[in-house]
Amino acid sequence: MPLIQVRVIKDVFDKEQKHAIISKLTDAMVSIEGENLRGITWCVIEEVESGDWGIGGKALTTADALAVARGKAA
Amino acid sequence: MPLIQVRVIKDVFDKEQKHAIISKLTDAMVSIEGENLRGITWCVIEEVESGDWGIGGKALTTADALAVARGKAA
Amino acid sequence: MPLIQVRVIKDVFDKEQKHAIISKLTDAMVSIEGENLRGITWCVIEEVESGDWGIGGKALTTADALAVARGKAA
Amino acid sequence: MPLIQVRVIKDVFDKEQKHAIISKLTDAMVSIEGENLRGITWCVIEEVESGDWGIGGKALTTADALAVARGKAA
Amino acid sequence: MPLIQVRVIKDVFDKEQKHAIISKLTDAMVSIEGENLRGITWCVIEEVESGDWGIGGKALTTADALAVARGKAA
Amino acid sequence: MPLIQVRVIKDVFDKEQKHAIISKLTDAMVSIEGENLRGITWCVIEEVESGDWGIGGKALTTADALAVARGKAA
Repeated sequence: MPLIQVRVIKDVFDKEQKHAIISKLTDAMVSIEGENLRGITWCVIEEVESGDWGIGGKALTTADALAVARGKAA
Repeated sequence: MPLIQVRVIKDVFDKEQKHAIISKLTDAMVSIEGENLRGITWCVIEEVESGDWGIGGKALTTADALAVARGKAA
Repeated sequence: MPLIQVRVIKDVFDKEQKHAIISKLTDAMVSIEGENLRGITWCVIEEVESGDWGIGGKALTTADALAVARGKAA
Repeated sequence: MPLIQVRVIKDVFDKEQKHAIISKLTDAMVSIEGENLRGITWCVIEEVESGDWGIGGKALTTADALAVARGKAA
Repeated sequence: MPLIQVRVIKDVFDKEQKHAIISKLTDAMVSIEGENLRGITWCVIEEVESGDWGIGGKALTTADALAVARGKAA
Repeated sequence: MPLIQVRVIKDVFDKEQKHAIISKLTDAMVSIEGENLRGITWCVIEEVESGDWGIGGKALTTADALAVARGKAA
């Protein structure tokens, strides 16, 4: 039952990191719900285009998100 | 930026467990993306009514989900 | 894999109709994808409050939706 | 076609404000797309329980959101 | 009003099958709600990248989904 | 807190119009909630493929949506 949907900007995370998102978020959920629900715990990643994510009305690009990740203010 | 949405059946998780979902899934995400993105990492829980979740066409109730959690087959 | 999410206004459909939504939409999906995917075909119903659904900027209530269903123009 | 979904914490906005959300966001969308698309522009509000919205791993309640609205830091 | 959203992994269904999803799921919904609501019954398909769909923490690719469809265990 | 998600068919709106969607819908929301909530008001655009949007069971393409915008009936 639990359905985890993760929305991110395209190209902020590579294939390996997306695999880590699926496995780590599922594990975190299973640590709360118990192993018996693992088989029906889904985690789906959905990507939006660079620039299509607004915070306070200002569009955030892939480059912006990566800059914040490296330590620059949003 | 990352937006984590968690859909569950109502009354499967209590208030404390829902807090744990928010904090543990966010921590799992931050462990991948880095601490600098924590401030713009959101985790929203959305509940659906008991019986409104179908797997293979069969409606799953709160009681069913709790039974699976306790070790009975779905 | 296929995830079917159905959003409706609260109290337009009763419990029995919601069961029918889950079973008929799943069957429709399975008729296209094949029986082997039935076990991982989910159908989740999510309800919004009466008045919280706007069409062209005009709020639609449960009563409005039922009136349209009975044959009055939206 | 455009579908606008607005997720908020329950009881932060009253009925009148929710009507304003539907009408003003639809008007904003129509100002970009043109009046001909108004009839197929939908705006749906979905509410989550107080405390079920996490920012940076910290749960936000209805009271917290109203406090931020009145000028206190989140 | 009813909004049907169908999430699938990219390239599991071709254009013709996606048309069938829209028409058959809408017909299934209309068989419950009545023909008068057909005009405001929407069905939107959203695709996620191969590998971005996790079940129990294991990423599912387009190839995996097609293999399950052909009769191999997930 | 408020999360605005806008779903559109791909290529109906260009980059500039998508920026306008983010800024105008956020401003409309802020005009109701107050400036103090602007910083945590998100607006995310999600695009679906041409033909993947059904109204009443009939698939709508990018060309169809643009035709409606120019004044032809849907």
